[in-house]
Amino acid sequence: MPLKPEQEAEIARLRADSAATRRATVPALEEILYQPIPVLDHGFVRVIDYMGDDAAVVQAARVSYGKGTKRVNEDRALIHYLMRHRHTTPFEMCEIKYHVKLPIFVARQWIRHRTANVNEYSARYSILDNEFYIPAPDQLAAQSKSNRQGRGDVVGADESARILDLLREDAARAYRDYADMLNEDEDGRVVDPARQGLARELARMNLSLNFYTQWYWKTDLFNLLNFLSLRADAHAQYEIRVYAEAMIGTLERWVPQTADAFRQHRLGGAHLSAAALEAVKRMLAGETVTQAVSGLGRREWTELMETLGNVPLRAKRGEGGDPSP
Amino acid sequence: MPLKPEQEAEIARLRADSAATRRATVPALEEILYQPIPVLDHGFVRVIDYMGDDAAVVQAARVSYGKGTKRVNEDRALIHYLMRHRHTTPFEMCEIKYHVKLPIFVARQWIRHRTANVNEYSARYSILDNEFYIPAPDQLAAQSKSNRQGRGDVVGADESARILDLLREDAARAYRDYADMLNEDEDGRVVDPARQGLARELARMNLSLNFYTQWYWKTDLFNLLNFLSLRADAHAQYEIRVYAEAMIGTLERWVPQTADAFRQHRLGGAHLSAAALEAVKRMLAGETVTQAVSGLGRREWTELMETLGNVPLRAKRGEGGDPSP
Amino acid sequence: MPLKPEQEAEIARLRADSAATRRATVPALEEILYQPIPVLDHGFVRVIDYMGDDAAVVQAARVSYGKGTKRVNEDRALIHYLMRHRHTTPFEMCEIKYHVKLPIFVARQWIRHRTANVNEYSARYSILDNEFYIPAPDQLAAQSKSNRQGRGDVVGADESARILDLLREDAARAYRDYADMLNEDEDGRVVDPARQGLARELARMNLSLNFYTQWYWKTDLFNLLNFLSLRADAHAQYEIRVYAEAMIGTLERWVPQTADAFRQHRLGGAHLSAAALEAVKRMLAGETVTQAVSGLGRREWTELMETLGNVPLRAKRGEGGDPSP
Amino acid sequence: MPLKPEQEAEIARLRADSAATRRATVPALEEILYQPIPVLDHGFVRVIDYMGDDAAVVQAARVSYGKGTKRVNEDRALIHYLMRHRHTTPFEMCEIKYHVKLPIFVARQWIRHRTANVNEYSARYSILDNEFYIPAPDQLAAQSKSNRQGRGDVVGADESARILDLLREDAARAYRDYADMLNEDEDGRVVDPARQGLARELARMNLSLNFYTQWYWKTDLFNLLNFLSLRADAHAQYEIRVYAEAMIGTLERWVPQTADAFRQHRLGGAHLSAAALEAVKRMLAGETVTQAVSGLGRREWTELMETLGNVPLRAKRGEGGDPSP
Repeated sequence: MPLKPEQEAEIARLRADSAATRRATVPALEEILYQPIPVLDHGFVRVIDYMGDDAAVVQAARVSYGKGTKRVNEDRALIHYLMRHRHTTPFEMCEIKYHVKLPIFVARQWIRHRTANVNEYSARYSILDNEFYIPAPDQLAAQSKSNRQGRGDVVGADESARILDLLREDAARAYRDYADMLNEDEDGRVVDPARQGLARELARMNLSLNFYTQWYWKTDLFNLLNFLSLRADAHAQYEIRVYAEAMIGTLERWVPQTADAFRQHRLGGAHLSAAALEAVKRMLAGETVTQAVSGLGRREWTELMETLGNVPLRAKRGEGGDPSP
Repeated sequence: MPLKPEQEAEIARLRADSAATRRATVPALEEILYQPIPVLDHGFVRVIDYMGDDAAVVQAARVSYGKGTKRVNEDRALIHYLMRHRHTTPFEMCEIKYHVKLPIFVARQWIRHRTANVNEYSARYSILDNEFYIPAPDQLAAQSKSNRQGRGDVVGADESARILDLLREDAARAYRDYADMLNEDEDGRVVDPARQGLARELARMNLSLNFYTQWYWKTDLFNLLNFLSLRADAHAQYEIRVYAEAMIGTLERWVPQTADAFRQHRLGGAHLSAAALEAVKRMLAGETVTQAVSGLGRREWTELMETLGNVPLRAKRGEGGDPSP
Repeated sequence: MPLKPEQEAEIARLRADSAATRRATVPALEEILYQPIPVLDHGFVRVIDYMGDDAAVVQAARVSYGKGTKRVNEDRALIHYLMRHRHTTPFEMCEIKYHVKLPIFVARQWIRHRTANVNEYSARYSILDNEFYIPAPDQLAAQSKSNRQGRGDVVGADESARILDLLREDAARAYRDYADMLNEDEDGRVVDPARQGLARELARMNLSLNFYTQWYWKTDLFNLLNFLSLRADAHAQYEIRVYAEAMIGTLERWVPQTADAFRQHRLGGAHLSAAALEAVKRMLAGETVTQAVSGLGRREWTELMETLGNVPLRAKRGEGGDPSP
Repeated sequence: MPLKPEQEAEIARLRADSAATRRATVPALEEILYQPIPVLDHGFVRVIDYMGDDAAVVQAARVSYGKGTKRVNEDRALIHYLMRHRHTTPFEMCEIKYHVKLPIFVARQWIRHRTANVNEYSARYSILDNEFYIPAPDQLAAQSKSNRQGRGDVVGADESARILDLLREDAARAYRDYADMLNEDEDGRVVDPARQGLARELARMNLSLNFYTQWYWKTDLFNLLNFLSLRADAHAQYEIRVYAEAMIGTLERWVPQTADAFRQHRLGGAHLSAAALEAVKRMLAGETVTQAVSGLGRREWTELMETLGNVPLRAKRGEGGDPSP
């Protein structure tokens, strides 16, 4: 469990407090408010605050004076319509704030989503904890052969043990020397009065990318869906995908109708190019279409066959590539 | 009063509802939640939702597990420190959503603030109400002589009466012909079955820029402060400034410590150029500094004299220029 | 022709100038640089400046030291791959700047695209020209019956003549009274010395939404494609669509490979929801699928049939609705 | 010198090319186009492309048909006026693109500036070079005593040698084990056929934050000035400040008038709070003002004294704190 007792106590205090509000309130999300959802070996995601609910999407779309909602069916249909037709602005009217603890190399992918507000724990100002990410053995995969940017087969047990040892030893040494250069303990007390100690903003450069950092991250519902559709995708790196999946759980508590439309139209859907659409039309007309006559490149053809086949992409975890550094 | 009875009823229903929440809650803002604050002759601003409070700024700055707040004094000092040193990200962690009714020419200035979420009432989809802005006589000013972009003296009574007549007649005619071209009433019923009626997206072009539109507008606290510092400024056009002033009232209810720091460091402060600062230093050293020896241009010199003088800029309402179209 | 002689002379002067540059240069776009492309009755779009070309997309995707391009085929394949997989950042590495003259109601839709830089002609500072948009008779359509947000059939000749008269008369009167209230001519000379004249920032409110404004508008290639895919769509209002279509012409000159991929994957493609994709799979498996058994709503089913049918959406100009106000 | 021969050859090829263009062209910037400006021990900044010049700022502010420039004096005055009054949009009309090589911990600060376009070298796709940052001995400073977020005195020679050894050894080991886990050389050839090798997206987590990464970074002139004013500030960490300073050199070549106004109004100026301004007024009126009677807090008072004193802030390199992680 990643939290210290005093952190748990702080969370418990926050959860014990309750106030009356006239704002839109979502009991299912309130239930888990402030509670960390464990991710990876030392990370977590927890919802800190939220604004709005499914009805707020509808209310904004109608620019209404009251709730804006009509019958449940009509609201549901409107939300699906907005999602299908890329009417994005009503979804921007809800907002959510997370506290996330995550490895630095994951943070480096995450921060690429620019339409969000971020406050990161400052290693210029504070000393980082001695916590680093070590993959589970079943996540230690070789470079993919089919995809230059993803993982292939899991490595064997011997190799796996060797790699885990290297990762652990190097991270431990990096932290030990970080602490040594700082010459102060976690409470800022000097360890060896005979030495000066190095400034925090410099010493931190010795830490490796699997060390954990943390931040407050806040975004609107529309940009959250963008984040989730990219990062919960089979092509995303496993270590960020597990965060996205934990967050989809919070999405379903928060805005169940929007989450449903999101699964229908974004996560579960498929985009066909003009040529792919043409190929599908010819197939539907009874023609036997091969790659050669389809006008599609080899790679796009393979992707189309997967889309139309029964092999769900999600089953092929880790064989993918995303646009992140 | 700008609202129809059914709109007032909807608002009353929303205000009557109350729920328990674990979220940060601000009673002073809850008091006025959903209530329209009248602005101009038919406009309003009303707070629809909010996320966070002063403590949330502190909490984010400290990336804390709990409230993040320490003693009141320390929190206050931290908020002032953040404001003074342009540490903007903690203020982005609070969010507010308004419903605003405003003349179209004001909406055109307002929309230039891009870091916000907007849902506007669609005149492609719906029929606009017959409501337009007519300035109060004491706002009918001549073009400023000193500032190419603002107002000067109030025009005389005769001229004023003549102008108000023109504005009223032209707006009334514009709406009458808009309705005539639409050939439908507000409930979408055909007026003259012998005619087809023009599409709403076309007919609307006949309306003038003083007609009212409305939107949901949501932004974070940092960008709200940017908006307010530009639009509550003496150089802003009166018709948008009154909205900004009404919103400062909501700011003071919502985040009183931030509002105080904002008055200290943004609204009430002044920026000196390198040359202006040099001039001030020479004055403080006892030197008599004139524009000629200051190295400042005539205009910047005048501005510096105003800054250092006792004539508060705000007193000179309307003599100014802002960057909006 | 919308330009005054001195404006034409200024453009001619700019076009006559030539300089040597080491930057990526696109002769096909240089050919039309600065030249206004007429749109609507008084509007235009003209390219003022640009940065990058197709090779710059490739260069950025590879973070290369040189041009980054390999064989033409490989570059082309990479651009298609990036477009297909939503790798958006390399397209952000090209930039284009337009000068646009457009009716205010079109500007109000356009400005909703926030990821762009804008400088609009200021009616607080300057006097607007007496130019307003009057639709061509074949664009005067009735409200659509199938779509609450678009146009249906063109109205008859009599009705059309009546509407055009109303639009023309009201706009002419609006301008006449605007000029009268200003009490100054276009060069800022007082017309009637006995009167004071109204400040420009006030007088402008009398103008209607079909008056022309103009701005400089600059965006990156990725956001330009977003703009074009929404505004060149059949659901966009005709009056903004014609601008988007003119800009697609400039896109093809500027970055022909990207424009081609854009047509393939964005303009010409289709997005299928999970349920729609499932229905297509069942059809491909030989099943007869009807709306009733498809699980799709009536409206989404109709859209799917259109997607799979031979009726190109683009043929049904004007029957649509977009998310703009 | 940080470049490989083939990279130098690519740059030389680009620089040898020249084309005719009608666009605004800046010979002083063309001179150094594509050339790396060395920063730190292995990093660089080089200008890859640019759009616009000083005249383009003026042109946009006037929404002109031609160059928009009048006499040099008027243009200069307009640029200063725009800068002084925070009219930001005309500066957004120029754009610049850099290729930057920088340590990862610097990249993590840099990326916080969200209004920019970025393409980073992907360590999921490619293998990073064995290059890491080791500070020069005179940059090895202890934690500041007066500022919890900055550097104080330079550490002694013995301590310095010890620290540099630790940094060098740990980075060398991190890379050696990174390469070992990958089991492939820089050209992607397997090293030990008996082992599988770890996927790149995993192995990279063993590298420390002082390893170099690189990216294409593109932004508009207004946001560049924001970046430079924060990162060239005395409170910024030295390792990012040297990049900002190198970029100010490119700014001065590119837009000399804007660079001058930037120095006058942003870099060299000072912001006074309402209370600080009041204190200055009282001083100017001949009153002796102390902190006690000023109403300012101790810290703000000290800052004010520095602002009014003759000790330039820039001289106190490294004693500071900025908002970055």
